[in-house]
Amino acid sequence: MITDTVILGSRLREVLGDRATTDPDRMGAYVRDQSLLTAAGRPAALVKATSTADVVATLTVAHELGVPVVTRGAGTGLAGAANALDGCVVLSVAAMDRILAVDPAARTARVEPGVINGDLAEAVRRQGLWYVPDPGSRAISSIGGNLATNAGGICCAKYGVTGDHVAALTAVLADGRVIRTGAATRKNVAGLDLTHLLVGSEGTLAVIVEATMRLRTAPTAATTVVAFFDSAERAIDAVLAVSAVAEPSLMELMDDVTIASVNRLTKMGLDESAGAMLLIQCDGRSAAAEAADCAAACEKIGASEVFHTDDPDEGEAFTAARRMALPALEAMGTVLLDDVAVPVPALPAMLARIRSAAARHDVTIGTFGHAADGNLHPTIVFDAAQDGALERAKDAFDDIVAGALELDGTISGEHGIGVLKAPYMGAMVGTVERELMLSVKAAFDPRNILNPGRGI
Amino acid sequence: MITDTVILGSRLREVLGDRATTDPDRMGAYVRDQSLLTAAGRPAALVKATSTADVVATLTVAHELGVPVVTRGAGTGLAGAANALDGCVVLSVAAMDRILAVDPAARTARVEPGVINGDLAEAVRRQGLWYVPDPGSRAISSIGGNLATNAGGICCAKYGVTGDHVAALTAVLADGRVIRTGAATRKNVAGLDLTHLLVGSEGTLAVIVEATMRLRTAPTAATTVVAFFDSAERAIDAVLAVSAVAEPSLMELMDDVTIASVNRLTKMGLDESAGAMLLIQCDGRSAAAEAADCAAACEKIGASEVFHTDDPDEGEAFTAARRMALPALEAMGTVLLDDVAVPVPALPAMLARIRSAAARHDVTIGTFGHAADGNLHPTIVFDAAQDGALERAKDAFDDIVAGALELDGTISGEHGIGVLKAPYMGAMVGTVERELMLSVKAAFDPRNILNPGRGI
Repeated sequence: MITDTVILGSRLREVLGDRATTDPDRMGAYVRDQSLLTAAGRPAALVKATSTADVVATLTVAHELGVPVVTRGAGTGLAGAANALDGCVVLSVAAMDRILAVDPAARTARVEPGVINGDLAEAVRRQGLWYVPDPGSRAISSIGGNLATNAGGICCAKYGVTGDHVAALTAVLADGRVIRTGAATRKNVAGLDLTHLLVGSEGTLAVIVEATMRLRTAPTAATTVVAFFDSAERAIDAVLAVSAVAEPSLMELMDDVTIASVNRLTKMGLDESAGAMLLIQCDGRSAAAEAADCAAACEKIGASEVFHTDDPDEGEAFTAARRMALPALEAMGTVLLDDVAVPVPALPAMLARIRSAAARHDVTIGTFGHAADGNLHPTIVFDAAQDGALERAKDAFDDIVAGALELDGTISGEHGIGVLKAPYMGAMVGTVERELMLSVKAAFDPRNILNPGRGI
Repeated sequence: MITDTVILGSRLREVLGDRATTDPDRMGAYVRDQSLLTAAGRPAALVKATSTADVVATLTVAHELGVPVVTRGAGTGLAGAANALDGCVVLSVAAMDRILAVDPAARTARVEPGVINGDLAEAVRRQGLWYVPDPGSRAISSIGGNLATNAGGICCAKYGVTGDHVAALTAVLADGRVIRTGAATRKNVAGLDLTHLLVGSEGTLAVIVEATMRLRTAPTAATTVVAFFDSAERAIDAVLAVSAVAEPSLMELMDDVTIASVNRLTKMGLDESAGAMLLIQCDGRSAAAEAADCAAACEKIGASEVFHTDDPDEGEAFTAARRMALPALEAMGTVLLDDVAVPVPALPAMLARIRSAAARHDVTIGTFGHAADGNLHPTIVFDAAQDGALERAKDAFDDIVAGALELDGTISGEHGIGVLKAPYMGAMVGTVERELMLSVKAAFDPRNILNPGRGI
C-alpha cells in the first residue's frame, strides 16, 4: 500500500508537477465536504487541477493504477459525496474557475467547473442577464458541484433546479477520454441525453470540465409577502391555495422552532407565537398584482398576520432571515440536517411525522424549506456532549427519511446521496433500478474508479 | 426464418391471444410512421398491447428468441423511429390509452403511453389545469411517443419540451423486468436520472408503460402579435430584440415561400410581399403589456407591418395558419421535411444556407419553425415525378443538415434521429460519445433487441 502510494505520487508528479501532492498536511483541507457526521477516508494523493489536461492526466494515471478518484469543487456538499476514500486521489477542480464566455444574444455562459455560483451570477448580471440557480450555498459553492448534485435553491419554485439550466457539458471519462454532451441549441434530440445523466451523478460517471449554462434576462424586482399561521399545516394549505392562483418565484416555509432560532440570531422580531411562517416572492411584470393574490390566498386560509411589500430592501431582509435558518439552528447545538421531499399535498403529513419523530426521540427539530417544491430540511438539533444524544438524533433522522418514503417522497430533494443517504438507497430505488444504474455507471467507468460506492 | 416466425407467432399468441398476429394484412397499418422517404422493414409479428403485462409478455418472448422489437404509439413520428425492421415484433401501445389519475393539488397526471396528447390536455383543462407540451401533432400523437422523441412544440419558447414536464416513468426493460424511474416529487436527486435518459431514447432503452406528467394551472388568454419583415434576417433581428424585453409563450417564423403556400390553402391574405412573418404570443397576467413591448421591438427593428390583438379568436386564426404551414407546403408537391436547430443568433446564417441550398439544387424550400428556440423546419418541395428531383431534394437536405452542424447546431431539434437522421449521427456526435451511448444502451438492453440501429 505504501509502495503503491509512492508509485501513484511519483506518476502524478511526473505529469502534474507540484499540482500533485501526497503530503498529508497539504491534503488536510481536501478530505471532507461540509456534511456532518459522515465518514471520510484517508486520501493517497491530491491533485489541484488547473486545466482539462490536468484532469485527463490525473484520470489516466488513476485508471491505469486502478486508484479511486474523488472529484471536488468548492467542497460545500452536504451529503459527503466529496469526502475522501481511503487511498484515493482527491481531484480538486476548484482552481478551474474561469468564465470562458458569456453570449448575451444566445443567453448562455461557458464556464469551468470551479466558478463560484455567485461569481457567475454577478458577472452576467453586469450584462443585464441572470444566472438563475441559487442554492443556499451560492456564495461559496461551485457550478461543477451544483451540477454534480443537481443543486436546488429557493428559485426552484418557478425556475427549476440546476439541471434545468444546462445546455452542454464537456467531461473527462474515467480512462481520460474527453466527451462533449448536449448542444449549444435550446433544443436537441440527437442521441441519448448524456447531459442530464451527468447532472446529479455525484462524480461517479465522469469529471465535468466545462459547462454551457443557460441564462435569462435579468428579472424585475420582486414583491414580497410574509404570512404567519397558527400551524404549519395551515401554512401548507396556504401553499396549495397560493399555487392555484399564482406562480411565486419563491415560497419558503419556516416552522416555530426555526422562527425562534432565527429571532435569537437576528433580532428580527418575527412572530414567535406563530406555528409557521411563509415567505413568498413574485417577480415579473405583474409581481405586485400576483403578490396581492398570494396575500389574499393566505388571508383566506386564515393567516394570523400577512405582510406585503414592494420594497426590495425589506424583501431582501426577509430572504436573508430565511437564509439564516440553518446558521441559526446551528447556533443552538450540533445539527443533523436532513433533506427530504414529498408531493406538496403530502407536506402536512410529513410535518406531522417530523414532529412525532422529535417527540419519540426527545430531540429538537427545526424545519424549514422549499414549500412550493415539497422539499423540507428538517434539522435535528442536539447536544453532542450528552450521552446518547447523537444516537437519538440519528434515530430521528431515520424516522424522517422513512416518513418521506411512506408519503411517496424522496430521500433527497437537492443535497444528494453521498455518504449520508447511501444507507437509504435500497429503500428508495428498487433492486432492478439500482442494478441498472450500476450498469450505466459501468458503461462510463468499467474499472469503477470514480467515486465508487457513492451516489447510486 | 419462416420457421422462426412460426415459433415467434405461436409463442406470442400463447401468452397474448389475438392481441398478437403474424398476418401481414393485419400488420399493414403498423409498418411505418408518418416520415417520408424512410426505409421500413417487414415485421414478423404485431402485438397490440392493452396492459403492462402484455408488454412484459411480448418482451420476454422477444428477448428469449432474440427478436428485435419496434415499439410504437400513435405512429405519427417524422423520422422513422417507429418504422418496422425486418423480422421484428411491432409492439403497439396505442391501446394503452387510459388517463389513470389527475391530481389537481399535486398538479400531476398519471397516464398510459397511448393517451393522445390533446386528449390529456382536454381532460385536465376541464379541471382548470394545463398539460403544456403541444407538438404540431398534438391532436394525433401519443404521450409515449412524445416522450420517446422528447417532442417539442410551439409552447417550448417559454415552457420547454416534453422532457421538461415529466416527473416519473414506469418502463419495461428488454428482458421483461419492470422499472420505475424518478419520483412523484418536484425535486429528486436519488441516484442517476434514468427518467431523462429514457426521454428521447426512441424505444432503444425500454418500453414506457406509464408516465407521471407535470401540469400547470390553466393559462390566461394570450395576446397575439403578428409582424411582417422585408427579409427573414430582419425577422430574426426582431426575435433577438423581443427576447431581450419579453418572454413570449410562442414565437414562430414563416418565410415567404411558406406565407404564399399558406395563403393559397387558407385564403388568409397574409402579406406575400414580405420576406418573413413572425407570430408572437404572450400569456400570463401581463400578456397585453408584454405583447405591446414585443410589437414595439418589431417596429423598432423595421417591421413593414405589425398587427396586435387581444381577441383570442383572432389569435387562434393566426396560430391555425402557422399550424397549416406543413399541410400547405405538402399541397404544393412531395415534401422532404427537415428539423434542425442552431443557437438563435445563428438563425440568419442558417436561413442564408437554406436559401443557397435551394438555389444550388434547384428546389423550392419553405422554411417555418420555432424562432425562439432556433429550431427550423426547412421543407423541401419537389415534383416526385420529375427525373432527378428526389436526388436534388436529398442533396439540399444534406446541405441543410451540414449547415446546421457548421453553425454549432443540431441535426434534430425535436423530431428525433430514427432512420431519417441516422446518416448524420457520426457528424453530430463524436466517436467516443457514440460508443458511450451504445454502452449505455447495452446496459439496458444487452441483447440489443429494442429498436436496434435507431436513435443513437
